[in-house]
Amino acid sequence: MNPDLHPSLAAGNHQQLSDYAARHFLWQAEGGVATLTLNRPDRKNPLTFDSYAELRDLFGRLKFATDIHAVVLAGAGENFCSGGDVHDIIGPLVRLKAPDLLMFTRMTGDVVKAMRACPQPIVAAVDGVCAGAGAILAMASDLRLGTARSKTAFLFNRVGLAGCDMGACAMLPRIVGQGRASELLYTGRSLGGEEGERWGFFNRLCAPESLLADAQKMAHDLVAGPTFANGITKTMLHQEWAMTLDQAIEAEAQAQALCMLTQDFTRAYEAFVAKQRPVFEGD
Amino acid sequence: MNPDLHPSLAAGNHQQLSDYAARHFLWQAEGGVATLTLNRPDRKNPLTFDSYAELRDLFGRLKFATDIHAVVLAGAGENFCSGGDVHDIIGPLVRLKAPDLLMFTRMTGDVVKAMRACPQPIVAAVDGVCAGAGAILAMASDLRLGTARSKTAFLFNRVGLAGCDMGACAMLPRIVGQGRASELLYTGRSLGGEEGERWGFFNRLCAPESLLADAQKMAHDLVAGPTFANGITKTMLHQEWAMTLDQAIEAEAQAQALCMLTQDFTRAYEAFVAKQRPVFEGD
Amino acid sequence: MNPDLHPSLAAGNHQQLSDYAARHFLWQAEGGVATLTLNRPDRKNPLTFDSYAELRDLFGRLKFATDIHAVVLAGAGENFCSGGDVHDIIGPLVRLKAPDLLMFTRMTGDVVKAMRACPQPIVAAVDGVCAGAGAILAMASDLRLGTARSKTAFLFNRVGLAGCDMGACAMLPRIVGQGRASELLYTGRSLGGEEGERWGFFNRLCAPESLLADAQKMAHDLVAGPTFANGITKTMLHQEWAMTLDQAIEAEAQAQALCMLTQDFTRAYEAFVAKQRPVFEGD
Repeated sequence: MNPDLHPSLAAGNHQQLSDYAARHFLWQAEGGVATLTLNRPDRKNPLTFDSYAELRDLFGRLKFATDIHAVVLAGAGENFCSGGDVHDIIGPLVRLKAPDLLMFTRMTGDVVKAMRACPQPIVAAVDGVCAGAGAILAMASDLRLGTARSKTAFLFNRVGLAGCDMGACAMLPRIVGQGRASELLYTGRSLGGEEGERWGFFNRLCAPESLLADAQKMAHDLVAGPTFANGITKTMLHQEWAMTLDQAIEAEAQAQALCMLTQDFTRAYEAFVAKQRPVFEGD
Repeated sequence: MNPDLHPSLAAGNHQQLSDYAARHFLWQAEGGVATLTLNRPDRKNPLTFDSYAELRDLFGRLKFATDIHAVVLAGAGENFCSGGDVHDIIGPLVRLKAPDLLMFTRMTGDVVKAMRACPQPIVAAVDGVCAGAGAILAMASDLRLGTARSKTAFLFNRVGLAGCDMGACAMLPRIVGQGRASELLYTGRSLGGEEGERWGFFNRLCAPESLLADAQKMAHDLVAGPTFANGITKTMLHQEWAMTLDQAIEAEAQAQALCMLTQDFTRAYEAFVAKQRPVFEGD
Repeated sequence: MNPDLHPSLAAGNHQQLSDYAARHFLWQAEGGVATLTLNRPDRKNPLTFDSYAELRDLFGRLKFATDIHAVVLAGAGENFCSGGDVHDIIGPLVRLKAPDLLMFTRMTGDVVKAMRACPQPIVAAVDGVCAGAGAILAMASDLRLGTARSKTAFLFNRVGLAGCDMGACAMLPRIVGQGRASELLYTGRSLGGEEGERWGFFNRLCAPESLLADAQKMAHDLVAGPTFANGITKTMLHQEWAMTLDQAIEAEAQAQALCMLTQDFTRAYEAFVAKQRPVFEGD
């Protein structure tokens, strides 16, 4: 940590999350890569009120983590996530009133906001069932590795709801196009693995047995890069969502000028001149 | 109809359109699905001033229809639509002055605005020629089924005009990507059926002989779902077009909380618990 | 030139660039198509401070050119462009301070702004290496022809920088989708030719030996079209980037009404009636 940093600034902004003790999922960190595993395989890893809240809080804290530079999001067993649990979540929801329902939908939306606001690229490792809010978690990740047998379903309309859940009507069209997103959201049908790769939902397909290792490899490769700059890439992909193109170009001019003042930029140049591979340090 | 509804509110907002007597195209409704067929097959179903105006007005009224929950848009014979008729439309247009031309382009734009503003998902069934304003009508639909032999051409530049017609420069890039949209709009070339499926313009290709039935099947499947929620999905896909992602997530939190207060949400939950298929009623 | 035009208006807005004497690249014009060739093939056509500045100024002047109606952007030898030169650009940059760095990133951003603001469609002919700022120049073009062996890499993170360079975080997601763009920007990996065509980055692939001729053919075809209207297509693709859909439809109603007042629109109608091919004149 930089000794010039005022203690209050450091305390608020420098958190160590490698040893974070997760309560409602698994969390394991190594070499700057944290692997978050939804872990109730007997029920295909459903989300609960508790796990939503912990996801929101943990991704919120990742904004300040100095020891984690990429996150892998996975499911235990052979499934990613079955979404909001019917008994634990949908049952209680049908009895709630408007203010409480908005409190709930805002909480789930805040999970996505926190996933997009933290600087760490998130790599989703998607096998088997990836449904409802589980499909949203995959969609809200930066990169997605799938398997041929994976089934991704934005099945909100199957439970009587609209496809507009946690940002789906904004994000999914930008990933797979407006026409394909419309079909998935209106019908709730499953997107297969190969189709998902063809449509750009998945970055690539992996064998189920290597999926997690492949995702972790991808995350470690990112962590070996300039992590401060990676975080700026993520920030700008988010910031420029609804800017005009000229505004985006000015925003990038400022952001990239900032990155040119990092030591990582100098390290890359010096390594190039010395015909070596750069060793980035994230500052 | 809800007996608690004030008569003036009901009168303005509850219209029955199943028996609507169309003048410039065919209109036939069954089980909540209306099929609108452009019907001048000898000239490949061109649009006229009259049909533009009726399309604008009818899609405008669909906003208030309580008996129609999905629309199929098709062409008679083996073609979808050849666009604005050269003799009936382009001939008169070349003699008009600025205010009248703007009145015309606003009327055609209003067709698209009304198609996007009504809550019913629109399924286009595209066979054969789909050109000019016909391609726009397909593009402005929610879902598109095509045939291998269909030819979709945004051919405005072939008649000396710009590709910016009825929202094409905004919508087409979101459906097929900015580079592919640019090519179609700058060159006016035909997009074939297989290419259109590969690019995400078509949701899938059908055999010409089953196309209409396939589109109606898709529409009936949507009508069997939660139609109020489907309308909210459509509204949010439109609303979030130019929002920031964080704004979109808040907008969805509100919209989905509203859907959670519908009986359809409760019906889905109760059906699930009873191990039955839910029967949605659209409220 | 229109004799009714006030000399000051004409002087500011009518420039002849066919005979422009380029200093830092090649410039050759014929029949309204200019071919701009980055020309340092021994180093795979890198960009320099000088060539950035000249590109910015030349594309800025193209806004006023009356004799150039399409531009082909190519690289000499068997490569497109290797991006900002390590020795000529990156070396000096690592020694600059914040205001000077922002001056540089704004200059490179201004190249893209000028490419998007000029009315001429730009066709990139991409063979071999297309890297860093070279990949940006291809991305900022309207149409892209590639070769199977081309390698397009947004490799900013390889030199310690963020992927947000000259508008990449805004443009690339709109061309290839948010998930694929994220991968290219976070990893800096090369996009191959076939993959690039499949993703919609390339409009099509060409044989290396015919690539330049194919791009020039495409440009000449555009120039044979209604060039004023083509420029409006380009303007509106840019203008509508962050509009709501309803705003875009109104903007297009105005822009298309303007195009309906051109003689090119009348020429197309009269040619159609006479069963001839229209000869457009760009007014």
